[in-house]
Amino acid sequence: MYRQPTATRAEILEATGLNPASLSHCLKRLIDAGLVLRVGELEAKAGRPADLLRLNSEAGYFVVVDLEASPIRFAVSNLLGEIRSRWEEGDPAKAMEVSVIKRGVDMVCSPLSAQEREAVLAISICRPGLVDAEGRVTSVNLGWDRFPFGEKVREVLDKPVFVENAGRSYLLAEHWFGAAAGVRDCIFVEVGKGVGGAIFSRGEFFQGRTQAEFGHITVEPGAPDLCKCGKAGCMEAIASASNVVRQYLDRVGRPGQSVPSLTVNDVIDRARRGDPHALAVTDRAVRALGLGLSYLSAIFNPEVFVVGGYFLGSEDFLLPRLRAELAMHAREWSGSCRVVPCATGSDIGLRGAAALAFYRVLEDPDLLRRLSEPRMRLAPKTRH
Amino acid sequence: MYRQPTATRAEILEATGLNPASLSHCLKRLIDAGLVLRVGELEAKAGRPADLLRLNSEAGYFVVVDLEASPIRFAVSNLLGEIRSRWEEGDPAKAMEVSVIKRGVDMVCSPLSAQEREAVLAISICRPGLVDAEGRVTSVNLGWDRFPFGEKVREVLDKPVFVENAGRSYLLAEHWFGAAAGVRDCIFVEVGKGVGGAIFSRGEFFQGRTQAEFGHITVEPGAPDLCKCGKAGCMEAIASASNVVRQYLDRVGRPGQSVPSLTVNDVIDRARRGDPHALAVTDRAVRALGLGLSYLSAIFNPEVFVVGGYFLGSEDFLLPRLRAELAMHAREWSGSCRVVPCATGSDIGLRGAAALAFYRVLEDPDLLRRLSEPRMRLAPKTRH
Repeated sequence: MYRQPTATRAEILEATGLNPASLSHCLKRLIDAGLVLRVGELEAKAGRPADLLRLNSEAGYFVVVDLEASPIRFAVSNLLGEIRSRWEEGDPAKAMEVSVIKRGVDMVCSPLSAQEREAVLAISICRPGLVDAEGRVTSVNLGWDRFPFGEKVREVLDKPVFVENAGRSYLLAEHWFGAAAGVRDCIFVEVGKGVGGAIFSRGEFFQGRTQAEFGHITVEPGAPDLCKCGKAGCMEAIASASNVVRQYLDRVGRPGQSVPSLTVNDVIDRARRGDPHALAVTDRAVRALGLGLSYLSAIFNPEVFVVGGYFLGSEDFLLPRLRAELAMHAREWSGSCRVVPCATGSDIGLRGAAALAFYRVLEDPDLLRRLSEPRMRLAPKTRH
Repeated sequence: MYRQPTATRAEILEATGLNPASLSHCLKRLIDAGLVLRVGELEAKAGRPADLLRLNSEAGYFVVVDLEASPIRFAVSNLLGEIRSRWEEGDPAKAMEVSVIKRGVDMVCSPLSAQEREAVLAISICRPGLVDAEGRVTSVNLGWDRFPFGEKVREVLDKPVFVENAGRSYLLAEHWFGAAAGVRDCIFVEVGKGVGGAIFSRGEFFQGRTQAEFGHITVEPGAPDLCKCGKAGCMEAIASASNVVRQYLDRVGRPGQSVPSLTVNDVIDRARRGDPHALAVTDRAVRALGLGLSYLSAIFNPEVFVVGGYFLGSEDFLLPRLRAELAMHAREWSGSCRVVPCATGSDIGLRGAAALAFYRVLEDPDLLRRLSEPRMRLAPKTRH
């Protein structure tokens, strides 16, 4: 019922494999609790018309936070990941401060009624770095090694807190609401401040013995581009936004000089207009990404690569080049592999955090009980 | 009980989570059937001594076949993968001929008694190429696309036939009997006629949307080394045995010339003695492998890489170089990752096929019933 606007009993029977009596029992309870709504009837060829059922999108809320975005974004989402209110914190450097997170959560909840506040089930945060099951964060770029971020945040908030890596959250958003909707084998690649992402393989998050930051795969052994991770020639050292700008400044004779006003988008614009230095730099970034993606393709053979970050807005210019590069190194597989821009826009982190929260609630007996027990419900404000 | 020579009831209780009454019931049945043997007693501190139980290694046999080896190897193994009789077929070009397989199976079974023949549960074949669940084979090197190999072989043999890819079989052999015994995250890399292998991730064979031949990952974009797969600069195009020989002949001024007597081991020997051309060629192969392994390391972070093929016999010379190369590109992870030569020797394919067969029997209700039903049993010939 999360997947589609309405469902019939027959569809739910087929999807769940429950027997009709069990399903009737469950549905009655969920309808009585206000979690499932009867929203219409579907005329049947014979017999009674079938009820059209819908998840009550307002049966619960989440506070969702995207600490990877700048500015940092806070929102209240309903059960289905639709945004109900927003708050932004301008200074991304403050993303690490627990007091800033606490204030953002308070601010975004301030327009809520007491009843709505009561219906907030959890706070779901997506953020840079690898996040383990206990909410500890490891990040080459931040220099963190299993920093107990989740614990620190839980100390100041009075609801359950879920923490997830931004790449995984973005992938969830695209898998549920975006360019990889329903695709079981898809890889999200974020090319921005860093290069990273997440992998869905056979319908589940892939993880090896430990989580990995695939932006730190060496794509140009012997390259002079030093990486924060201590190696050289990583995908990130060549293709991240700041590294594209760095290489451009090196080529136009201002090496090491900081030009705060020059962004990766400026470099891409210059490449588009034929600036040979900008073209050389963006081509090198695309070659590095294409090669890195070809490794992932060889191993996972995803149906879809969803690309986010600075590719958005320049996808007409960058994506054909990336596809050609990938095809060159993954010829055997690329025929069936699409490379597409992400589709959930700048709310990607918030919507991913909401999808994650819904899943975590399903896995948590206490929260699930809270969600499905009879009590006053808010009526849906919008149809979706 | 497959994992260790003897086990006590207490150990089995702990490993299975069965309750004591169920376990007694099961064990009685298996002991009555002759599948489990009481082989001794372990004195207890208090109470009755504990029975030492052992799987009857002779309760069933497999015919195991390694079509990747040259010469092609046939053997009869007992339930525990111990080889009981052997046969070899000299001409590896015949590995594709069903009649050759049929004759090899007949030959290797000819020393068996009627009772032993009756106890042969299945024929387990490991072979080059990717093998799907139906035994269809796809191989860049053979130019096969889902060739119905399993079906063809089943037509001429009167026992169940299991077919598996050589890399996976080799990995199973090493996981059960060799250098990665009991390791849940390990990768087998065969560097021989081709470059390939298999991946165990979190205790299971890893597979993406489709199986992949990771020897065809591009490690040197733009390299002139053409690969059978149609690309250039693949790991295999640089590091396979014949490609090492090719590069050496190119460098010493006999390009394209076939020198049938010169093997990859000769090139490695010359490198060892300081021949600069041989050294350049082996170093390049090791660099290509190290880079390819670093990608796998970044994604899977295995505990162990087990390396087979021409590395065997030259591991003192090649492995330290490979480890250094891997460490350079996978610095974050390499601290906890071992790179070791395979330990099951030239029987690796046969033992892998036997391990595979045991697993397939456990998954097949008919074969499992046949194995565990009461009937005449052969006595074990050796303790292990």
